[in-house]
Amino acid sequence: MDWTRKKLYSQYDKWSADYLLALQAQAAQSDFRPTYHIAPTSGLLNDPNGFSFFNNQWHLFYQSFPFGPVHGLKSWVHLVSDDLVTWHNLGTILNADTAYDSHGAYSGSAMVIEDRLFLMYTGNVRDKDWVRHPFQNGAYLDTDNHLTKLSLPLIKQPAHVTDHFRDPQVLKKDDTYYALLGAQDANTKQGKISIFKSNNLTTWEDLGYLNFTQQDMGYMIECPNLVTVNEKPVLIFCPQGLDKNIINSDNIYPNTYLIGDNCQLKNGEFHSTHNIELLDHGFDIYASQAFNAPDGNAYLVSWLGLPEIAYPTDSENWAHCMSVVKKLTIRNDKLYQEPVAAFKNYRKCHAELHGMLNEHQQIVITENATLSYELEISFLQNQQGTLSLLSSSNSKGLRLNFSTSNNAYFEIDRKDCGIPFATAYGTKRRVALEDNAPLKLHILIDHSTCEVFVNGGEFVFSQRIFPNDDDLQILLASESEVIYNGDWWKISNMTH
Amino acid sequence: MDWTRKKLYSQYDKWSADYLLALQAQAAQSDFRPTYHIAPTSGLLNDPNGFSFFNNQWHLFYQSFPFGPVHGLKSWVHLVSDDLVTWHNLGTILNADTAYDSHGAYSGSAMVIEDRLFLMYTGNVRDKDWVRHPFQNGAYLDTDNHLTKLSLPLIKQPAHVTDHFRDPQVLKKDDTYYALLGAQDANTKQGKISIFKSNNLTTWEDLGYLNFTQQDMGYMIECPNLVTVNEKPVLIFCPQGLDKNIINSDNIYPNTYLIGDNCQLKNGEFHSTHNIELLDHGFDIYASQAFNAPDGNAYLVSWLGLPEIAYPTDSENWAHCMSVVKKLTIRNDKLYQEPVAAFKNYRKCHAELHGMLNEHQQIVITENATLSYELEISFLQNQQGTLSLLSSSNSKGLRLNFSTSNNAYFEIDRKDCGIPFATAYGTKRRVALEDNAPLKLHILIDHSTCEVFVNGGEFVFSQRIFPNDDDLQILLASESEVIYNGDWWKISNMTH
Repeated sequence: MDWTRKKLYSQYDKWSADYLLALQAQAAQSDFRPTYHIAPTSGLLNDPNGFSFFNNQWHLFYQSFPFGPVHGLKSWVHLVSDDLVTWHNLGTILNADTAYDSHGAYSGSAMVIEDRLFLMYTGNVRDKDWVRHPFQNGAYLDTDNHLTKLSLPLIKQPAHVTDHFRDPQVLKKDDTYYALLGAQDANTKQGKISIFKSNNLTTWEDLGYLNFTQQDMGYMIECPNLVTVNEKPVLIFCPQGLDKNIINSDNIYPNTYLIGDNCQLKNGEFHSTHNIELLDHGFDIYASQAFNAPDGNAYLVSWLGLPEIAYPTDSENWAHCMSVVKKLTIRNDKLYQEPVAAFKNYRKCHAELHGMLNEHQQIVITENATLSYELEISFLQNQQGTLSLLSSSNSKGLRLNFSTSNNAYFEIDRKDCGIPFATAYGTKRRVALEDNAPLKLHILIDHSTCEVFVNGGEFVFSQRIFPNDDDLQILLASESEVIYNGDWWKISNMTH
Repeated sequence: MDWTRKKLYSQYDKWSADYLLALQAQAAQSDFRPTYHIAPTSGLLNDPNGFSFFNNQWHLFYQSFPFGPVHGLKSWVHLVSDDLVTWHNLGTILNADTAYDSHGAYSGSAMVIEDRLFLMYTGNVRDKDWVRHPFQNGAYLDTDNHLTKLSLPLIKQPAHVTDHFRDPQVLKKDDTYYALLGAQDANTKQGKISIFKSNNLTTWEDLGYLNFTQQDMGYMIECPNLVTVNEKPVLIFCPQGLDKNIINSDNIYPNTYLIGDNCQLKNGEFHSTHNIELLDHGFDIYASQAFNAPDGNAYLVSWLGLPEIAYPTDSENWAHCMSVVKKLTIRNDKLYQEPVAAFKNYRKCHAELHGMLNEHQQIVITENATLSYELEISFLQNQQGTLSLLSSSNSKGLRLNFSTSNNAYFEIDRKDCGIPFATAYGTKRRVALEDNAPLKLHILIDHSTCEVFVNGGEFVFSQRIFPNDDDLQILLASESEVIYNGDWWKISNMTH
């Protein structure tokens, strides 16, 4: 399809049901469709939105363009879950259909207000000269999952920011509501986080920018999230155009976090003695959204995709999926991420894996690991080797290279895993590990997704991969002697 | 919506994607939506089609009109399963888009031919005077689930039948292919089963009618199925307008079966010394489709709905669902139906239920049984009572009345279960049981469905019910002393 501006921004009633049904069937039939990750019913999925707990269920929404693998006129699709693992898709709920969101119901967040869920989102509006006017809008979801939009926007673009002003996170501190927004300063064209406050969720006062760093955050910050983890404030955000001296990432845009010592939103102060860190060390995490749940935990979910990158399923007319939901903790001043505990309820067909390789040996650990599994595997210290997932006699697969000796590291190389893509951004991602310490990997594979939790979630590597149907082996190759111990489980299907 | 003929038969590209997305969201959000039965993504579902095992998966299709709870322009929606319990919806696959199916891709069946699945279906065509011309068409599904229609129809309406000529079941006996079709004789206007044969699946020879009964089968037979169960031929079919002296059913149309002694399709002979029996004793079974699977078993699946009856979800713009898949066996010359064994893999949260009631006592067996459960419960001989499902302090619920004394019986009364519907056809269904014998019930509840397997599947009662959200109790009331023993499990969600 030739994606003209007119096509991209056509109202949904201008598309035919016939075309939509064909796209839905194409997406459902894809060999790359994950079975336990949220994927779009058709077309494109991007940012997670409105992640919350309301009316005794977990709620999550995704940014949707149902008519192709492109960023067209966005709406929200609504999902609910009882356990943060199985999600039920309740369909499109927030459409771009008013004067204040005519060109897209863009990203936002949610907060429970009495017996309703308050949604705050960016309405994208273009005027006849195609000048963008971002509005921060409100809507309420009731306990019957019916949505009512507020008739007027809550926040209009202030003079000190450009039209890059979006992704409100609504928060409550003491008895005051706050909204954090991704912004670009009008004078400096630098990326900023805007703060607004309100006593009633209706009238909002501009508090300027959040003061969280002296460093230059590039030209835009998207998707700011402030969350409390083990009693510390953590700021999660997506700086665009960041200097590599600040965050050395090969991804087009990184998703980063900063642990704070204290945060006073009313003064716009986020004080930190830490460095800004990469949230995920893999190839494809962006637009993460976190929130503090009533169970006392902080949970995170991410778009498992990046802007401006072509993905192999574009040719199948659908694109992207969500990460699994991760629980956040802080240990030793580091942010740890782990899959939620309910995952264990979906394990099937356990296999124990253990053995020893001499140096320069290669063995098939599992001949048919399927395309939907969980693998926990540990290596002793002073070992070097490569664990190859999704490999076959014809394919080297996804290589996880590691050393637990001196200059210890963990590295993912997706160069030879199925269909190559985004190779201009490199095919390897690596972190240095503590020298001479054992290594523990917790790996989730789901057709076209791979999420690796290193050492209990100290580092996470999340990425899309597009293996062949018959790349089902798990291989282990040793440089040194390698002793491994692990468990494999098939994961049953669960995302609806 | 005002369902004019024009609206009902509009091509799918005349409907807007916007409208379809709204209907999909409405169906997904319904409180009545089952969680382990196949339900339509939107609009109406009716007959199961193409039930088969191909390419290492179970395949099933359903008759679909996605734009409302009405019988409009039909297409086939495709589902696959690994275990006959969890079904993945792969979307619309067979559309009404040629000269030979312009007014609906109606029901049909499937057969594996080498490395493809051959589908035979009725193409419904109306000419400009709205005269119906039924064509029996062919299509092939390949191992990538791509469908290719044959360009010409395989069977046209013969002179000796009216335009009521549909629902081909394709079969192979020895080296010859046969098709059984529901038909109405042109002269007598009686319901018949037509037989055609072919050596190549392309040219078909009319063998006239199947000679299986001397009785008058009413004005039409729909959905004939010939299946082998424990080495006996069993004919399953839906006679319309049947005399109540032949089958005493209060349903608008019954679904019936006849166990044969032998069947010679080449001579059109189905010899039986048995009576035609009701396949299901509940309120809502129709258009059942059975086939002999390569695992040696015969499996059956049914439309859990009836033609020409209004259902409460019509107001939510969707209608109907499938029954669970049942395994067929013959014991003591009776057809038994049981849920497939894989069901046991989905049981959660077991509770044992046992106790004794004195006469004229009532107890709550389970306070919160949920709306999605499995219940096995047994009663001793010489007892009378009522098991009430889906009841509450405000609702008597679905009453299962029984006696295991003399004049033993089992009866379902849905009069006081949630939203009443189809009450013109009575609110009770009953079978006589063997006197003075214990009673065993195996019950599946799923939001708006109830399937009761009596005494190991000797009798099945399948129905829709539309309880209130808080009708969650299981109650037992005794006439005599009643001793009960049972097990309850929550059933986890599994239909995608």
